[in-house]
Amino acid sequence: MNIFEELESEVRSYSRGWPVVFDRAQGSRVFDEDGKAYLDFFAGAGALNYGHNNPVLKQALLDYIQRDGITHALDMFTVAKKNFLETFKEKILEPRDLDYKIVFPGPGGANAVEAALKLARKVTGKESVINFTNAFHGMTLGALSVTGNSMKRGGAGVPLVHATPMPYDAYFDGQYPDFLYFERLLEDSGSGLNEPAAVIVEGVQGEGGINAASLAWLKGLADLCAKHGILLIFDDVQMGCGRTGPFFSFEDAGIKPDIVCLSKSIGGYGLPMALTLIKPELDVWEPGEHNGTFRGISPAFVTATEALRTYWSDDELEKSTKAKGERIAAAFTDIVKAYPEANLVAKGRGLARGIEFESGELAGKVCAAAFERGLLMETAGPDGEVMKLLPPLTVTDDEITEGLKIIDESIATVLK
Amino acid sequence: MNIFEELESEVRSYSRGWPVVFDRAQGSRVFDEDGKAYLDFFAGAGALNYGHNNPVLKQALLDYIQRDGITHALDMFTVAKKNFLETFKEKILEPRDLDYKIVFPGPGGANAVEAALKLARKVTGKESVINFTNAFHGMTLGALSVTGNSMKRGGAGVPLVHATPMPYDAYFDGQYPDFLYFERLLEDSGSGLNEPAAVIVEGVQGEGGINAASLAWLKGLADLCAKHGILLIFDDVQMGCGRTGPFFSFEDAGIKPDIVCLSKSIGGYGLPMALTLIKPELDVWEPGEHNGTFRGISPAFVTATEALRTYWSDDELEKSTKAKGERIAAAFTDIVKAYPEANLVAKGRGLARGIEFESGELAGKVCAAAFERGLLMETAGPDGEVMKLLPPLTVTDDEITEGLKIIDESIATVLK
Amino acid sequence: MNIFEELESEVRSYSRGWPVVFDRAQGSRVFDEDGKAYLDFFAGAGALNYGHNNPVLKQALLDYIQRDGITHALDMFTVAKKNFLETFKEKILEPRDLDYKIVFPGPGGANAVEAALKLARKVTGKESVINFTNAFHGMTLGALSVTGNSMKRGGAGVPLVHATPMPYDAYFDGQYPDFLYFERLLEDSGSGLNEPAAVIVEGVQGEGGINAASLAWLKGLADLCAKHGILLIFDDVQMGCGRTGPFFSFEDAGIKPDIVCLSKSIGGYGLPMALTLIKPELDVWEPGEHNGTFRGISPAFVTATEALRTYWSDDELEKSTKAKGERIAAAFTDIVKAYPEANLVAKGRGLARGIEFESGELAGKVCAAAFERGLLMETAGPDGEVMKLLPPLTVTDDEITEGLKIIDESIATVLK
Amino acid sequence: MNIFEELESEVRSYSRGWPVVFDRAQGSRVFDEDGKAYLDFFAGAGALNYGHNNPVLKQALLDYIQRDGITHALDMFTVAKKNFLETFKEKILEPRDLDYKIVFPGPGGANAVEAALKLARKVTGKESVINFTNAFHGMTLGALSVTGNSMKRGGAGVPLVHATPMPYDAYFDGQYPDFLYFERLLEDSGSGLNEPAAVIVEGVQGEGGINAASLAWLKGLADLCAKHGILLIFDDVQMGCGRTGPFFSFEDAGIKPDIVCLSKSIGGYGLPMALTLIKPELDVWEPGEHNGTFRGISPAFVTATEALRTYWSDDELEKSTKAKGERIAAAFTDIVKAYPEANLVAKGRGLARGIEFESGELAGKVCAAAFERGLLMETAGPDGEVMKLLPPLTVTDDEITEGLKIIDESIATVLK
Repeated sequence: MNIFEELESEVRSYSRGWPVVFDRAQGSRVFDEDGKAYLDFFAGAGALNYGHNNPVLKQALLDYIQRDGITHALDMFTVAKKNFLETFKEKILEPRDLDYKIVFPGPGGANAVEAALKLARKVTGKESVINFTNAFHGMTLGALSVTGNSMKRGGAGVPLVHATPMPYDAYFDGQYPDFLYFERLLEDSGSGLNEPAAVIVEGVQGEGGINAASLAWLKGLADLCAKHGILLIFDDVQMGCGRTGPFFSFEDAGIKPDIVCLSKSIGGYGLPMALTLIKPELDVWEPGEHNGTFRGISPAFVTATEALRTYWSDDELEKSTKAKGERIAAAFTDIVKAYPEANLVAKGRGLARGIEFESGELAGKVCAAAFERGLLMETAGPDGEVMKLLPPLTVTDDEITEGLKIIDESIATVLK
Repeated sequence: MNIFEELESEVRSYSRGWPVVFDRAQGSRVFDEDGKAYLDFFAGAGALNYGHNNPVLKQALLDYIQRDGITHALDMFTVAKKNFLETFKEKILEPRDLDYKIVFPGPGGANAVEAALKLARKVTGKESVINFTNAFHGMTLGALSVTGNSMKRGGAGVPLVHATPMPYDAYFDGQYPDFLYFERLLEDSGSGLNEPAAVIVEGVQGEGGINAASLAWLKGLADLCAKHGILLIFDDVQMGCGRTGPFFSFEDAGIKPDIVCLSKSIGGYGLPMALTLIKPELDVWEPGEHNGTFRGISPAFVTATEALRTYWSDDELEKSTKAKGERIAAAFTDIVKAYPEANLVAKGRGLARGIEFESGELAGKVCAAAFERGLLMETAGPDGEVMKLLPPLTVTDDEITEGLKIIDESIATVLK
Repeated sequence: MNIFEELESEVRSYSRGWPVVFDRAQGSRVFDEDGKAYLDFFAGAGALNYGHNNPVLKQALLDYIQRDGITHALDMFTVAKKNFLETFKEKILEPRDLDYKIVFPGPGGANAVEAALKLARKVTGKESVINFTNAFHGMTLGALSVTGNSMKRGGAGVPLVHATPMPYDAYFDGQYPDFLYFERLLEDSGSGLNEPAAVIVEGVQGEGGINAASLAWLKGLADLCAKHGILLIFDDVQMGCGRTGPFFSFEDAGIKPDIVCLSKSIGGYGLPMALTLIKPELDVWEPGEHNGTFRGISPAFVTATEALRTYWSDDELEKSTKAKGERIAAAFTDIVKAYPEANLVAKGRGLARGIEFESGELAGKVCAAAFERGLLMETAGPDGEVMKLLPPLTVTDDEITEGLKIIDESIATVLK
Repeated sequence: MNIFEELESEVRSYSRGWPVVFDRAQGSRVFDEDGKAYLDFFAGAGALNYGHNNPVLKQALLDYIQRDGITHALDMFTVAKKNFLETFKEKILEPRDLDYKIVFPGPGGANAVEAALKLARKVTGKESVINFTNAFHGMTLGALSVTGNSMKRGGAGVPLVHATPMPYDAYFDGQYPDFLYFERLLEDSGSGLNEPAAVIVEGVQGEGGINAASLAWLKGLADLCAKHGILLIFDDVQMGCGRTGPFFSFEDAGIKPDIVCLSKSIGGYGLPMALTLIKPELDVWEPGEHNGTFRGISPAFVTATEALRTYWSDDELEKSTKAKGERIAAAFTDIVKAYPEANLVAKGRGLARGIEFESGELAGKVCAAAFERGLLMETAGPDGEVMKLLPPLTVTDDEITEGLKIIDESIATVLK
């Protein structure tokens, strides 16, 4: 482990909780250099919805590389991109009656968010954006300015302005009407709130602590935006691609955001890829006004296309994700009941699940105990107080059984 | 081509000059879906220094995928990363007596720049940065704020502040002393220049028009920064990895920047990867203070490692790059002389070469004429007035001969 | 009136509602050039608490000018300033057990606010400030950024950032706990609220619509600030100098703000003067770090001193202000009751009183009707929906009777 | 002096160099509380061009106060304002063929600047402004952001952005072409310079070190602005009202700025007053979009009107100012010659004159020596290295003789 400590910056984080050197991976398992297997319930922070090195995607990827399919293609037209666009249209947009144009904003989720913010500001001529408490949208300057975490914000080194946080769903435990403060500020011309170009929101806040907005709240937000002429940017980077069941986490709310950000699992195999979907009337960019080097990584298009074909031609994955999610939810409810004095809270939707502990220390100890038992999990929330589960959607029932058993033991160890 | 026009945003750019659908690629050649070959003298805007689908790297990549080496690994410790770090240390840092810690800032060059700016501001407690006229550093908000192009800046939708542009080398054709204005502003406490945290500079400005700073100017800049306690950020995203001959484009200037940004060709095969190198004393980050999903793409580490071993174990590539560059430079000098009334200017260093025309229209016509003849080239400069050449460093002498012939013809066609 | 229309910018405002040319003034009366008298219940927007051309102050002023007392003295030591400081200490600070150092920030209230904001940021090293809905603090860039009115904010021409608005007292009609949102954002490290240097607040919002914060709310705010290490800036520019009864509008809340802004009536005679009072431990400025030309206008010191001696040597003025205020409040309550379908609301404290109408149009018509009857009143509130009364504190009972009669008639005319 | 040290903030500055308590003043003389006379060659930093308590203005002021002319009148129409407007039109605008509308922006020079910047941004829809090295425009946030002095800028506590400094005339001692850098940045769309709404400039930089721009440079700047569609804001707060000879310091350059800021001596008697003059086509403000409490201080209008009538009905004052200025300039040239090793530089225009020393310490010692001899002078320049003379324009020849003698002695004492 010497070379890491010697050369890698102290900013590294995940390696601190999992101090082993990983080598191979398959499905829900990763293996360290000594061959020890770990059950991965973190799945690349949601970038591996179809599991590690999914064999169907792997074969398509190998074939493409073998035949010297173009790898790096900027934003040129390519066969790989054509296939992806056609498949995305057929499997995703058309069945959901969604009419979006597609921006390839760069390789990662932050690029998708940066492009969304830039476009919203350009279209509206306004600079201000509304974000939500405990939001996470990325670490580049634009994305960071709409992210909540104060430690990460502090890294900017410049004041992060142009965004005003509003309370996310259930921020006051349902005691106060949704959007009370937000709507009042919008309607009061003396409120001092800069008129916003856009609202940016996640369907379930992953980094923020597995906070699942109710569908009613999401619908209410979309209505509020429509009423006040505010663009709705839906950041589905982590919760899209089926994480909560449907392909988009906003589908069940019956809304059609103006702009949608996708990344993480969109490439299918863990290769960097991102999309910004925009309503056609917002497509006011000049050619090249937003660009970048890694917007046409064809291998990712190939695996993305194969993933869409394999998993989104019917509703099997959506159903199984919801079913698996319910199973975990039920198990978590039992855990919560089992420790009445620990004030645990079960959270989440679909296969984004969590248990909130009274402190980050406790949640961290649970994850550490799980790691010792061969299970990879991470914490989330402002103080790391939520044990977070993002297993591959392809996780088997046996693996869920195995994982839940480790979780039970780990919590028991920590809470005595 | 329907699906592209139907679904892709108008922001697409390269596909406008090259309206064919590419499919395969090998070395300096790309092939469209009808099998037509093109000589690629753009090479992914510098992301393909070792050519398309380089066979040595390809084999390493296939092997890694075949054996289910972990693909996506956040910033966990992996065998692939270990190998990369050890090789980077052995082949790059140690021979050049460079002492850097390595940040994996995210998948692309803009992430490397964003991390550099954040760190420089955090370390110094200052927010202001000096950039240079016609700089290009990326399209995310922090990187865009230090980029010169006004059209791209306009896309931000918020005022881009915290940066003040200074004249790049030869901005006034050498008539005025280097750093005259910059140094005077720094030394005059009444100048109104906010004290800068850092300077960010490219060794050769690619997007800005293949402007090659003299080594003396780069040395002078480093000295100026040292004298005034300003951090020097060297953006070697496009000109690093051997583009100008040596691995880093600053080597021949005899300087050691405080922070270095690498991306594009560092992955070797065109897969997204980026590094921010920082002097050890700057490594003040909290764990996770800068993070991201795509900081551990192992296939890119594998091809990066293989590229370092193959091309940077000796000085063959550096020598051949310089020699090929000189050959092109000589040819360009001849072209300049051949059209005395066209006021052409030959520009560049190593295998970053260009010819400046009197207008963007002329340069664009030359590139269009070259495309018709099967050569891919792009324009650069604020008005696109520079015909830009960034061939793979592995380009053969025959390919250079072929390309130069097309260029000759294309220019002749346009200039009569 | 030609010369005004010819030469004065369209930005002029008060002259639009009162299209006559005023000439002389005495006590609560102003006279136009034709000698017509108007009862002035606006009193220079609170700058004339002791009435127009108060005879006691007038004599002191004439004496000072006659004897060639220095008029303009920058921030030099002067006899006039010495007398003011000694009197302010004796009559204001010591009886209230207040320990402040005094900054002379410039001639007007906005200067007092700008100095307060600068100092709070310098002391804390933080840039963000909390302001309140419908706040008014001035029109210079720093003061404007903490002002609520969207039309006035729009005049800035740059994004107004660094401030986040919180709900002022009773913003949700008392249905939700005070400070619920504010405190939650402060305590949640993931809220996305930049840690504030300071809170800036008015005791009664005059321009915002005669919104009188309850004393409990003000106390709660001071406690919240103390608990979270946030500086409390109290803008008493309009409500200080006895407008609500006590010299400072915060006295009855039992709090001692960290910084207090005074202007308007502090000079006594309507001459420009302003003070920023700061707790001694905040006095970290370098000599000249904040300066200005008009910080030592001795005639204003002379009338200010005379006003303090005359009106603040006992509690007569405070008592009479409260009594007169109660009398007007009672009259307004009757009016509210008399028009049950008009949804009028009586507002205010001390001699800052108002009636809220259902629209700015109605309130404007009432003020116009009053002007026709010889009474000067203005509107306030985000849509100008509040008829605002700020009579001189020296207004006589007969004048109040006269004014209330005109108000009765005017409202009757408008509401039929 | 106890009460000052006890109560006044450490930010006080002028009182540090002149530690006596002043009481009365007349013409060029001020008197301390013990009756000791001082010759005042600072004149309120240029606010007292007509001398202290000028008897003609004093009589008009006394008459106005005696007859209860309205003192404080917001922006209402008043007889005092009417008289001022008519006189300003007749004596100032018409004879110079200037067509301006007049904004009453607030009581001080910073207000005039803030209004100018706001309007320029509103009219152009651009946020960026060009200022000059060593500019001084005021201490409120907008004005401070275009001010050069780093100590004063540091007091802001927020990053001062939206302005880029350009070299003032002779910044490089005439070795490089005027506007070389500025024009190149404007014409290069890749320069990274945000397109400016306006340029703000002083005719002679007073605080910056008595730097007198050449008339050719001012003309060149106006031409450059016109060519590039940039508004020219001329800050004549200190150098207007005859300080350099003509009423406006830009007159002799033959230019007509888009916006002109006046304050300091415009009121004549040292009472706070300010004007922003704007070309009629720029008058796009909404009523009340910029406002303030102290925009209609009638006593200042009265003395301003009397000053215009008395001093600007013919060109006597302009001529005598220039003549007196030349006399001082000649004396300063002799001084410079007398100390060849001291590297003194004589600077200025009209009655804004200075001698630059090699350090702020030397200039400070000269001013201290002068104070001991009964002469008030201040230093200017980024390091206080310039001994600055701003005597009343009404200074007599004998007073000049007396002052120059003290200066001679003081310099001799300091330089040996």
